[in-house]
Amino acid sequence: MPELRKDPIIGRWVIIATERGKRPSDFVSEKKESSDRFCALCPGNEAKTPPEVYALRPEGSPPNTPGWRLRVVKNKFPALIAEERLEQTSTGVFEWMSGVGDHEVVIETPQHNTRLFDLDVEAVADVIWAYRERIHALKQDTRFRFVMVFKNHGVAAGASLEHSHSQLVALPIVPKRVFEEMEGAQRYHAEHHRCIFCDIIKQEVDAEVRIIEQKDGVIAVAPFASRFPFETWIIPEKHSPSFEEMEDYHELAQVLRGVLRRMDRILNDPPFNLVIHTSPFGETTHAYYHWHMEIMPRVTKVAGFEWGTGFYINPTPPEEAAQYLREVSP
Amino acid sequence: MPELRKDPIIGRWVIIATERGKRPSDFVSEKKESSDRFCALCPGNEAKTPPEVYALRPEGSPPNTPGWRLRVVKNKFPALIAEERLEQTSTGVFEWMSGVGDHEVVIETPQHNTRLFDLDVEAVADVIWAYRERIHALKQDTRFRFVMVFKNHGVAAGASLEHSHSQLVALPIVPKRVFEEMEGAQRYHAEHHRCIFCDIIKQEVDAEVRIIEQKDGVIAVAPFASRFPFETWIIPEKHSPSFEEMEDYHELAQVLRGVLRRMDRILNDPPFNLVIHTSPFGETTHAYYHWHMEIMPRVTKVAGFEWGTGFYINPTPPEEAAQYLREVSP
Repeated sequence: MPELRKDPIIGRWVIIATERGKRPSDFVSEKKESSDRFCALCPGNEAKTPPEVYALRPEGSPPNTPGWRLRVVKNKFPALIAEERLEQTSTGVFEWMSGVGDHEVVIETPQHNTRLFDLDVEAVADVIWAYRERIHALKQDTRFRFVMVFKNHGVAAGASLEHSHSQLVALPIVPKRVFEEMEGAQRYHAEHHRCIFCDIIKQEVDAEVRIIEQKDGVIAVAPFASRFPFETWIIPEKHSPSFEEMEDYHELAQVLRGVLRRMDRILNDPPFNLVIHTSPFGETTHAYYHWHMEIMPRVTKVAGFEWGTGFYINPTPPEEAAQYLREVSP
Repeated sequence: MPELRKDPIIGRWVIIATERGKRPSDFVSEKKESSDRFCALCPGNEAKTPPEVYALRPEGSPPNTPGWRLRVVKNKFPALIAEERLEQTSTGVFEWMSGVGDHEVVIETPQHNTRLFDLDVEAVADVIWAYRERIHALKQDTRFRFVMVFKNHGVAAGASLEHSHSQLVALPIVPKRVFEEMEGAQRYHAEHHRCIFCDIIKQEVDAEVRIIEQKDGVIAVAPFASRFPFETWIIPEKHSPSFEEMEDYHELAQVLRGVLRRMDRILNDPPFNLVIHTSPFGETTHAYYHWHMEIMPRVTKVAGFEWGTGFYINPTPPEEAAQYLREVSP
């Protein structure tokens, strides 16, 4: 059974995914890259995945059969599992809890070789809508405090399957990174009575140097303190604490697709990670938190300096990155 | 000039290394791997590096000539530079400071194809001694608060040069990761009047399940909440806040060499990052902080889940990792 273990010094949680139980030889053999393998995410192979929990398919077409445009299934090798009791234990300085959670895979398209940003805007909006629907469904389980939506694109960004997909992991605790953002935003709000994200947006829109796209209330911006070259955040212009409370994702889909296509044009299909930061469940974050999407092209290596310090060295100023991204046609 | 920029939400600092000024094409062409290139770190090419600031070489042999066993030079492409005034500025929500700091390279051996753990124990102790000497030297500059010592081994761990080397970066601020450890350790000390690292060591030595080596006061252990498969910490058994205050590194060298050789045997020369966490300069950390070395083999990919949450998924329980590492002969 997977375990959630707490670092006794800094309080960071780690998932020890015993289900995967990797031995040294698994890592040594992983060095070889695979190709032309059987793909469980392709149409016709629906029986090879756990049963679907959500799908966009023609009316009347039975679940787990071909014909779908999008499919969400449980992860076959989940990092956390729902069928467990939430129990917390400790021995001496060490604390851990049972690995309660959930782990789903969003199969974004039936086409094996189509990337998310090759889809048309409507299909990208469908993917985002699926995130929303699954967050609402997972939220029903009161053990969960947060659902992390993320996408890994390309082997170097950690994608272990070629077929375009995203993932959702439901967690019984608030992630450190989101908690830090909440703390910082709360501190700023206590002092200024304003949302820090809203203030950043205002300043960026005025300055115009780091804005990449601005379309019908959705903004793409290279953050002032970008960790990675060409890092881009997508954020609604209007104050909005929870991603899943949005009613329309058309503009978001348009900007997301545009940003990814711009990155593809100038960086030649770079590996990237995409994450959504939104309010944890059952927290009163309305006044100060503002959901957003972070896209991190993985064109530099994260190395000793970054692991040791928690700081980053970014060789491309965000002003230059924004200019390159802005000037290329998506 | 490089800049240190502060993330306005969570307060994390980022180095925007304008000196390196990377454009999109630099990243696209970086995909190709190079080999058999000229090596500036090899003997005979001393003129191709900035002048040495420390060396182990036969008595009477002039600096920047061959004959050395170990050499420390300034980094040719520094992330931060000493020749700057420390100035802090802000505009609206954004804060930054001039990129004051220093960046040095420790060339661990004259032999191009010798890895750190191929050296004998004395030579490894020389490398560690060089870290100490350079920390003491850099500490003289009162603008600096911390020196991060780190080593990247292998391309996947971010090593851009093949020739075995480590790096030191002097920083005008305390790294986030070290600050978090200090905060946690201070909290624990306030409550228990003991060092949390000492308590962890005691518990690990008693339990025996995560210990990899224990030799003359130096311990190698797989941390309870390991982020990465086969992650290993090396820590002095006796309470010791500052790495550079140690007088003898022989046992440390022995354990470090042993751990790296064990990793090499079971993971087939894995890429790894090594970092040293020690007390910042001018802080009274004596009661609660305990320096240590963290070694992170890079056999899994850090991906969207980790970036989004700040949590980690580790498929190899540290108890199993410790057993594999313990049982192989170094």
